[in-house]
Amino acid sequence: MSKEIYENPDLKKERQNCPFNKEEITHLLDGGKEKTIERKQLENYILSDEQLKDAVPMEYLSHADKYAEELRKACLLMHKLADSPAGQVPTLRALMGAGLGSAVLKEGNPLALHYVMFIPALMGQGTIDQQAKWLEKAYNLNMIGTYAQTELGHGTFLRGLETRATYDPKTQEFILESPSLTAYKWWPGSLGKTANYAVVMAQLYTKGKCEGTHPFMVQLRDEETHEPLPGILIGEIGPKLGMNTNDNGYLGFEKFRIPRDHLLMKHSQVLEDGTYVKPTNSKLSYATMVFVRVVVCQDMTTNLRKAVTIATRYSCVRRQSELKPGDREPQVMDYQAQQNKLLPPLAATFAFQLAADHLWNLYNTANNNIEQGDLELLPDLHGLSCALKALCSSEAANFVEVCRQSCGGHGYMSCSNFPRIYGQVTAAETYEGENTVLWLQVARYLVKTRKEKSGGLSVKYLIGEEKGPKTVDTTLEGIVKLYRRAAVGLVDVAIAELDKSGRKGEAPHDAWNHAAVYLIKAAQAHARLFVVESFVDSLKEGKLSTPVRTVLSQLCELFIIYWLLERSGDFFLCSNLTKQDLLLLNSKYVELLAAIRPQAVNLVDSFDLRDEVLNSPLGCWDGNVYQRLFDEAAKSPLNQSNVHESFHKYLKPLLKSNL
Amino acid sequence: MSKEIYENPDLKKERQNCPFNKEEITHLLDGGKEKTIERKQLENYILSDEQLKDAVPMEYLSHADKYAEELRKACLLMHKLADSPAGQVPTLRALMGAGLGSAVLKEGNPLALHYVMFIPALMGQGTIDQQAKWLEKAYNLNMIGTYAQTELGHGTFLRGLETRATYDPKTQEFILESPSLTAYKWWPGSLGKTANYAVVMAQLYTKGKCEGTHPFMVQLRDEETHEPLPGILIGEIGPKLGMNTNDNGYLGFEKFRIPRDHLLMKHSQVLEDGTYVKPTNSKLSYATMVFVRVVVCQDMTTNLRKAVTIATRYSCVRRQSELKPGDREPQVMDYQAQQNKLLPPLAATFAFQLAADHLWNLYNTANNNIEQGDLELLPDLHGLSCALKALCSSEAANFVEVCRQSCGGHGYMSCSNFPRIYGQVTAAETYEGENTVLWLQVARYLVKTRKEKSGGLSVKYLIGEEKGPKTVDTTLEGIVKLYRRAAVGLVDVAIAELDKSGRKGEAPHDAWNHAAVYLIKAAQAHARLFVVESFVDSLKEGKLSTPVRTVLSQLCELFIIYWLLERSGDFFLCSNLTKQDLLLLNSKYVELLAAIRPQAVNLVDSFDLRDEVLNSPLGCWDGNVYQRLFDEAAKSPLNQSNVHESFHKYLKPLLKSNL
Repeated sequence: MSKEIYENPDLKKERQNCPFNKEEITHLLDGGKEKTIERKQLENYILSDEQLKDAVPMEYLSHADKYAEELRKACLLMHKLADSPAGQVPTLRALMGAGLGSAVLKEGNPLALHYVMFIPALMGQGTIDQQAKWLEKAYNLNMIGTYAQTELGHGTFLRGLETRATYDPKTQEFILESPSLTAYKWWPGSLGKTANYAVVMAQLYTKGKCEGTHPFMVQLRDEETHEPLPGILIGEIGPKLGMNTNDNGYLGFEKFRIPRDHLLMKHSQVLEDGTYVKPTNSKLSYATMVFVRVVVCQDMTTNLRKAVTIATRYSCVRRQSELKPGDREPQVMDYQAQQNKLLPPLAATFAFQLAADHLWNLYNTANNNIEQGDLELLPDLHGLSCALKALCSSEAANFVEVCRQSCGGHGYMSCSNFPRIYGQVTAAETYEGENTVLWLQVARYLVKTRKEKSGGLSVKYLIGEEKGPKTVDTTLEGIVKLYRRAAVGLVDVAIAELDKSGRKGEAPHDAWNHAAVYLIKAAQAHARLFVVESFVDSLKEGKLSTPVRTVLSQLCELFIIYWLLERSGDFFLCSNLTKQDLLLLNSKYVELLAAIRPQAVNLVDSFDLRDEVLNSPLGCWDGNVYQRLFDEAAKSPLNQSNVHESFHKYLKPLLKSNL
Repeated sequence: MSKEIYENPDLKKERQNCPFNKEEITHLLDGGKEKTIERKQLENYILSDEQLKDAVPMEYLSHADKYAEELRKACLLMHKLADSPAGQVPTLRALMGAGLGSAVLKEGNPLALHYVMFIPALMGQGTIDQQAKWLEKAYNLNMIGTYAQTELGHGTFLRGLETRATYDPKTQEFILESPSLTAYKWWPGSLGKTANYAVVMAQLYTKGKCEGTHPFMVQLRDEETHEPLPGILIGEIGPKLGMNTNDNGYLGFEKFRIPRDHLLMKHSQVLEDGTYVKPTNSKLSYATMVFVRVVVCQDMTTNLRKAVTIATRYSCVRRQSELKPGDREPQVMDYQAQQNKLLPPLAATFAFQLAADHLWNLYNTANNNIEQGDLELLPDLHGLSCALKALCSSEAANFVEVCRQSCGGHGYMSCSNFPRIYGQVTAAETYEGENTVLWLQVARYLVKTRKEKSGGLSVKYLIGEEKGPKTVDTTLEGIVKLYRRAAVGLVDVAIAELDKSGRKGEAPHDAWNHAAVYLIKAAQAHARLFVVESFVDSLKEGKLSTPVRTVLSQLCELFIIYWLLERSGDFFLCSNLTKQDLLLLNSKYVELLAAIRPQAVNLVDSFDLRDEVLNSPLGCWDGNVYQRLFDEAAKSPLNQSNVHESFHKYLKPLLKSNL
């Protein structure tokens, strides 16, 4: 006889008579049934290990103890993956990210950068000889590397980096130097205490001339003692809003010498006499950035799924206030105001995932073309990856906070996991290209396309004078046309601003700066159009059962109307949208909220996120919210005794002092 | 010869030729020159004490050590205030809040609730006899109290509370009982480890009947040993997004008996035989809630000032990318995109402060009237305080995040102080009435006024058919009229939704729920109108010098246009705003950004926030950002040695294991 598993009765009811097959959605999101099976096997293997669990939740530990504890688990995880009967190689999924990785290493893996940046940099920038020299060592973890680019005073703007590597032909060495405090590397993960090697970006000087930033392989610490080598100044940068065990560090150089062949020379070289040999194609490094941005989008989506799952389950368990006077307190999810908070982010998880999938396919096509020497897709791919990364990260951050707040006070508790999810998501608004910088890059591509009447596939709609129809059609197709009108219209408004400044005699760079507000709006409208079109197209193309297609179509329509209502001003400005149209769309919107409400729990169940990944008493599958909150509190070291020692030291003297 | 004080050359330049008197603005914000002097004296007295400073920043400590360290400082602060030569009484400012309090007790004062809730509850709800019995003891800190209302399963909805106090006429005692897990008190500050008394809200049962929630004085812990009394179950609830040393706790009762006269009986009583005597006026407790909400608004404003000061100074020190090709990297503040991020929140600090001042005056007038038995202003005051609390907290939270992100990666560091400021501000979106609940309360007042053509001063504009003019006037006065049109229009849209549901035969409570999206929009438009009108009126009425009036008028116009552009859809929907009007307003907006930009640093200087209050290397007066970031990192315990012990335990075996 197996013990009966508790299930909150309200959740049980929500799960009855689900009209669609949840697994079909799980497979869709995982990328196929095989992928789902693979994911689950890995989760079972890793999450069954008691040693990878936290004795005391991370939040109670000191900063240094957090680092030590996560390093312990990270090292154990590497051994475990190597010992895997299935010979599991360290996948990114197990090492980091919002899924399985976050269930083990909750605030970041101090070894992550080794796999995410160091090895890829070596592969992308090193010659065959250099790869032969270092790659095996890196794979065997005989060295642990990171990637050091950002400096204390310099971020997104690569040309501003100050770290210098000056070639000395006498000794055939580069001399690394941090000429000022602001030149110190600052932020690289794994750098503080963990890594003993790094790929360092520095301004290459040879024959008295600066040739721009280049990657160098640098040993930072002694391989035996781990002491920093002479001339290397290293430390950690301190606590952050999130990702506190990523071990972000700083790094300075005092005339630190490395051999000439530690310049990673796949693309450009310095010969023994100091002659600089230019790279053949500078666009090639685009591809890696695009890849990383697609991964970021997927990670944002996973994070958002976690937040939506926690908030949705909790909102169906929580009962609060009254709807009908005298009735029992209703499930919070039955309030339209709560549906308005939670169903748009639920729909967004699908919208962002399908757009990221779309971009991923484009990336693969482009990569094949590149190998055949065809770089035509690159500007389009660059533009879309910037746009989607900026959009997914900023929207996901907002939605995560909406989810948190929809859980009231309990969402504010660390154990809800919302604070940590937010810390991960909002970080992505800044890293891998700060969002505002990215929006302005996208805008440049849009303005160029519109003005020159030439551009890639994703901006074809900007070429020509496609005018919207006189009256608005509020079908799904009609709304997508509105999005297109808004995207075109906002580019035109931005161009009008540019022209106005031009007529006033402003230099082009000043005119550009003075149109920034509208340029950013135009880029955002472009990104939204891409997401909206991807969603609609995917539903048209995908092989879906009728019940799944029905519910996804509802989510699609809800999402597309939601975004329109959120910035209806843009649509009024750029199309023939009328007040009556808007009110009609609002009615549709609230009807869709009511229509989707009954499937909210079934939809989040379809995400198939394990309790260990959700890591939240509010979001557990069984809905045993209050008992689990209590059990969490019981873990507090302060609750291990009734009276804390500080009472005797500080409080009792105060109570007795008759102030 | 005094040592020369460093000042970042860019900030020095920003401060040259300030066209207005900064102190005039300081006095305006403090509420007069006397208040400024008083504030500075208190700051000097408290902040000069070395023992009130942190040896190691709070973020590095464990959860338990944080509590102990803050309790140490809190107790010391009480002694210090008592010993003050000027006989300083413990003001709220010194004890808590975003100003001086936060410079000493950065994550919350474990003694705060004693002053903010316990003593006021005693004064507001206790009889003269009860006050005589407990107040002196409370003032002398011979007892430390808190206020316990919220339960694990019950928040905003007071009637839902489960804790019971059943009167036993035989012993003339109340029996306190937590009938279930969800009945446990959960969240009260100071409750976890610190307080030994509490005012507890419980459902009063006498003669077999429930008389609703009432306040009871309850001793929780032994005054000597601090052990919880038999029948009292107590502990802390664990870490949170912020305010981690507020010592939030839980509390359960197992048939815990208290004397009859521990019911606080100023308003209602239970006689010896168990007879319940009703309160004469239930509206009186409104006043305390209004007071607390005004204080919350002021605190939000102070927090926002801190965030804006940090971001503005940093943006003038930080140089990044390029505007003019070949030029030196410009100050980030010179980008229109950055001005668009930072100048609206700068303007908002004035808008919110002036609206809070306005409400404060109304509160004082209403209080005088109440003493004379006139309760007419109460509904208006209640509505405005709900609306302003919800608006200030949600807008401040968004703006703080914008400020943080405007500082790029460095804003993500804990030492920037943004994460902590956000933690404080976003908490206020939930406490003292969850914002969505408050919006719906405000909407009820608006709909009632509009339908019944009768309501208080703040909603007079909803009575009658005041139609906007055919064409829009984009002067300040004209824009305020647009705000009024939008507020009226959105109430009408909500009423149309209610009527539509009514015609479909829905019960009123269902119709209300199904109109929630528009009801909330209407309430928000009402709140914005109040803020906008207060700002415009204050500038008309206030005694200001011409230079100060000029810059504040620019901020006022910027802010009013900013909010309109942000939700221009509402204005299109509810007024005759045209596309041309919108483009014109946008042009004005970007002109105002450029006009205010040169005074940004001078304006934040006028806030007169001490470096200890800002508590951020990014925001210090001297602008020595990078050196200070470095100095902060040097405090990390992980940086006290080159190699952390975890290297030998975990990392070295991994490096040597040839995986």
